[in-house]
Amino acid sequence: MPPGEIRLGANQYGKAEVRLVRVTRDTAVHEIEDLNVTSQLRGDFTTAYTEGDNASVVATDTQKNTVYGFAKEHGVGSPEAFLTTLGRHFVDEFAWVSGGRWAAEQYAWERIAVDGQPHDHAFVRSGREVRTAVVQIHGDTTHVLAGLQDCTVLKSTGSEFHGFPRDRFTTLVETDDRILATSITAWWRYRPGATDGGGTDWNDLYAGIRDTILATFARVHSLALQQTMFEAGRAVLEAFPAVAEMKMSCPNKHHFLVDLEPFGLENPGEVFYAADRPYGLIEATIEREGEPAAPEAWATVPGFC
Amino acid sequence: MPPGEIRLGANQYGKAEVRLVRVTRDTAVHEIEDLNVTSQLRGDFTTAYTEGDNASVVATDTQKNTVYGFAKEHGVGSPEAFLTTLGRHFVDEFAWVSGGRWAAEQYAWERIAVDGQPHDHAFVRSGREVRTAVVQIHGDTTHVLAGLQDCTVLKSTGSEFHGFPRDRFTTLVETDDRILATSITAWWRYRPGATDGGGTDWNDLYAGIRDTILATFARVHSLALQQTMFEAGRAVLEAFPAVAEMKMSCPNKHHFLVDLEPFGLENPGEVFYAADRPYGLIEATIEREGEPAAPEAWATVPGFC
Amino acid sequence: MPPGEIRLGANQYGKAEVRLVRVTRDTAVHEIEDLNVTSQLRGDFTTAYTEGDNASVVATDTQKNTVYGFAKEHGVGSPEAFLTTLGRHFVDEFAWVSGGRWAAEQYAWERIAVDGQPHDHAFVRSGREVRTAVVQIHGDTTHVLAGLQDCTVLKSTGSEFHGFPRDRFTTLVETDDRILATSITAWWRYRPGATDGGGTDWNDLYAGIRDTILATFARVHSLALQQTMFEAGRAVLEAFPAVAEMKMSCPNKHHFLVDLEPFGLENPGEVFYAADRPYGLIEATIEREGEPAAPEAWATVPGFC
Amino acid sequence: MPPGEIRLGANQYGKAEVRLVRVTRDTAVHEIEDLNVTSQLRGDFTTAYTEGDNASVVATDTQKNTVYGFAKEHGVGSPEAFLTTLGRHFVDEFAWVSGGRWAAEQYAWERIAVDGQPHDHAFVRSGREVRTAVVQIHGDTTHVLAGLQDCTVLKSTGSEFHGFPRDRFTTLVETDDRILATSITAWWRYRPGATDGGGTDWNDLYAGIRDTILATFARVHSLALQQTMFEAGRAVLEAFPAVAEMKMSCPNKHHFLVDLEPFGLENPGEVFYAADRPYGLIEATIEREGEPAAPEAWATVPGFC
Repeated sequence: MPPGEIRLGANQYGKAEVRLVRVTRDTAVHEIEDLNVTSQLRGDFTTAYTEGDNASVVATDTQKNTVYGFAKEHGVGSPEAFLTTLGRHFVDEFAWVSGGRWAAEQYAWERIAVDGQPHDHAFVRSGREVRTAVVQIHGDTTHVLAGLQDCTVLKSTGSEFHGFPRDRFTTLVETDDRILATSITAWWRYRPGATDGGGTDWNDLYAGIRDTILATFARVHSLALQQTMFEAGRAVLEAFPAVAEMKMSCPNKHHFLVDLEPFGLENPGEVFYAADRPYGLIEATIEREGEPAAPEAWATVPGFC
Repeated sequence: MPPGEIRLGANQYGKAEVRLVRVTRDTAVHEIEDLNVTSQLRGDFTTAYTEGDNASVVATDTQKNTVYGFAKEHGVGSPEAFLTTLGRHFVDEFAWVSGGRWAAEQYAWERIAVDGQPHDHAFVRSGREVRTAVVQIHGDTTHVLAGLQDCTVLKSTGSEFHGFPRDRFTTLVETDDRILATSITAWWRYRPGATDGGGTDWNDLYAGIRDTILATFARVHSLALQQTMFEAGRAVLEAFPAVAEMKMSCPNKHHFLVDLEPFGLENPGEVFYAADRPYGLIEATIEREGEPAAPEAWATVPGFC
Repeated sequence: MPPGEIRLGANQYGKAEVRLVRVTRDTAVHEIEDLNVTSQLRGDFTTAYTEGDNASVVATDTQKNTVYGFAKEHGVGSPEAFLTTLGRHFVDEFAWVSGGRWAAEQYAWERIAVDGQPHDHAFVRSGREVRTAVVQIHGDTTHVLAGLQDCTVLKSTGSEFHGFPRDRFTTLVETDDRILATSITAWWRYRPGATDGGGTDWNDLYAGIRDTILATFARVHSLALQQTMFEAGRAVLEAFPAVAEMKMSCPNKHHFLVDLEPFGLENPGEVFYAADRPYGLIEATIEREGEPAAPEAWATVPGFC
Repeated sequence: MPPGEIRLGANQYGKAEVRLVRVTRDTAVHEIEDLNVTSQLRGDFTTAYTEGDNASVVATDTQKNTVYGFAKEHGVGSPEAFLTTLGRHFVDEFAWVSGGRWAAEQYAWERIAVDGQPHDHAFVRSGREVRTAVVQIHGDTTHVLAGLQDCTVLKSTGSEFHGFPRDRFTTLVETDDRILATSITAWWRYRPGATDGGGTDWNDLYAGIRDTILATFARVHSLALQQTMFEAGRAVLEAFPAVAEMKMSCPNKHHFLVDLEPFGLENPGEVFYAADRPYGLIEATIEREGEPAAPEAWATVPGFC
């Protein structure tokens, strides 16, 4: 027989995917911020589960309302700052809320050009990548993660793959010139304290880290997607002391050279079939020796090693 | 009793979503073209349906191979040119193929910047919109449609909606300042002959028409999404004589002003909830008086009035 | 120069994807109907486009409200009946509305079993296929289309493909035993008059036609997907005199036999790779000789030949 | 300055989403198994990251081939058994592979009925829910997780929500009768040893646990979705001693009662708007006191607390 009583273990709850568009219209030149916000609380909610007693359940509808109310009262500014303010509110306001997870996606827009001039209040979604952020609060500790996803990149040369072990099931041919393509998901954790004080410019940090990842992908002559990912992480950690560690998840989006020989044609790296599934999947952490680990910062961040 | 014999009516078949990436590498500065190609044939294929006799069925696998072979032999250049070459091939090669429908989506990429310089062979998908094209061949007639989709735009002001009729089911409040947002799907048909000769620069035409649509969306003070759409169509038809007509399908992506009054806050057009469903849906044709209609050009183009 | 004035052509507008769940709770044994309803009006709305004058624009919000109000007043019963009532309302209520298109998806639910008994008010979504309907009104004429989509079927044998023509680009090997798999989209048009009177049981008709399509797919030894589709249409038209014609769109979802020979294994039709893209795509109409055609019934039904 | 050297941390890699259809055709009555398999290895792959040396990188293509080869040699039987065999192979075959994560989705099919009889080799995808499994190997320890997702359930009554705390941002009205709907994602971990020996019938266990979850959802009069989830977990742990703990993630799919009063209609729980976003999201673990925790079993299982 299995041991002991059946009981509630780790849990969290809240409102997911609150779609918020915040317009700043102090002048005729408007700014827009477009986010998808999730708020989840942790703490003592046991009786809701075991007895259906909701006395401690801050309604998910209330969490949604708070997102919208805070967007007015405090503005957004950056997802990192907004989520931190939001999270502290719940932990400070409700004694039994000991922490939680606040997450956001942010979508980029650019101004539409009219006669060569950026328009005051008309925008087109640029969609190059989605910016992400997670703030995790555990009592007095706040962890700030930032990241990006759906950032699809491709090198038409400068990528090799050979020297791998061969067994009974190995049929892959070695290559010294292939297309390397991936859709980057990256998360980096800011060092506690490194970003204290109101002065952190989260938006500048984000843009700088994104550009470093992209430039490294371009710059590195790749012997393996693993190598490219490690170099991207190393470049970020070297250039940004505020970053404690970075995690990346990169599908190897295979582009297969089409065999044109049956049609009497050569194909020297020109015509490719872009496959959907299956795909390689590489997931790795790049970290600093001696930096304290923070597993609780990564709890419930989807799918990472 | 219903009349007559049961028989085969209109039909078409082929290979859909052939993912093609074409690299041009004549110099160290590579170019890439990234398409999703569909080929469908029309003609006399009756016995395949009625008897399972495949003597006339150009295999869909063969159609796929032809896409890849032609990408090598002829290059891509533009989706309009590539699809036209592809389509003519099938009609000319197989006596019983009287026409068909060749379609493509094309995805945009931009060069990654390294130290401020665009990289030779590393790209990031820009994703602002998807370019589309359909070539329809009916015997000797070729129709070229071009378009775009997933082009999401938003105006944070400059949009009103009032003066609509009210009945028992009307509760909507009139407004003289709202967010107007949509994801534009547009198709325009080039006038037969207007694009003859090898000299047509389909890529320039596409870029010009797209920019005109965007600029018109920005420029027009909108009293109805219908009005904005008509003005976009009019601007395109005025500026581009090669365009015979344009069809647009635009969801009205509602952004609802959040009621912050219960929280003691005003909300003068600042905090919005971006809704998913339901959404308004406006579909319209803008055309030239006296221009011959071409219903066969629009056959099987998804969902248009 | 292109001819004439720029003007508005064909157009329609309305509210799309109104998600409606209707509970019938006259007794303790509840019934649920779960639909996604779209309402689009046609008529004279020109000045909305050309002048931004909304005097004729029945607000899409009003159309949504009418869906919900009618669900209470008239119940749903079947998507065909519900959409017909809805459509007639708009045409009768507003003089300038000459017709429109009303569409729905309906999702199936089954009762959860508790101790072997179906529960009174707890359901699980069954998801075998999505039922669809479109009602088109043009003045006094009403067309009723019904259909299904996302109906995925597979035969593990009983399918061949050979005898197709070969050209320079043909590499496909002939086969006398393959997997045949598709996701059926079908639309059938009911004959005008055949369904008049309040007595039509649309739900029984739907179930009968769906079962006939499935059984025919199973029963026919297939020499081509085209043949299987034609036989399905023929079976429906033979068994259901109320059906004037049927259109089907079927992707050939390729299942490739994996080459296990390099691993020293045989593969007599046992291990398959299910591919995503590209896929074959067959679209065909099966009709009755002598039956009047009704192209206006098919206007703006997505993607059909 | 941040501490120490930059180095590789936790990592895993492999081939994701290998689509496998296995036909068992020993008799004329075929069986099919339809899976989406992911294989990821952990161990010492450092030099691939730091030097681009692939001597230890078992190619993801090889992992894919092994999935197909093993499907022939060993059959599938159940995802749990198949993934365990697959995982042990890699750990045993390659000295530097210390473990990994093997995951699968399995899709359900039912036989098509022809003249009331189930067909020998024709199937329709039933799609009621997706079955999932993850096998995690860390050296000599093997953890087996099983689960389900996309299991959408709804109660049309028997659900209340009241007694929650109110603050400045609370506007939600209390209710003693609402629709409760969710799409269940559940994972349960089998106790190490509880499933040893070749005799475990994973398929029976799966079906029993799924039916228990569904029946509990139906049976419990719900005062909170949290309560319903806890009761489902408790029912599973009580009935299945082999289960060590269960984790559930359940969106609260809001169904809002439509206000029909402006139209002069009552709405006593009959007409609902099914909303998309935002949605509540409840995530919880139900466990046995005294049972050893196994955090490594849950590593990289997406999004769980």
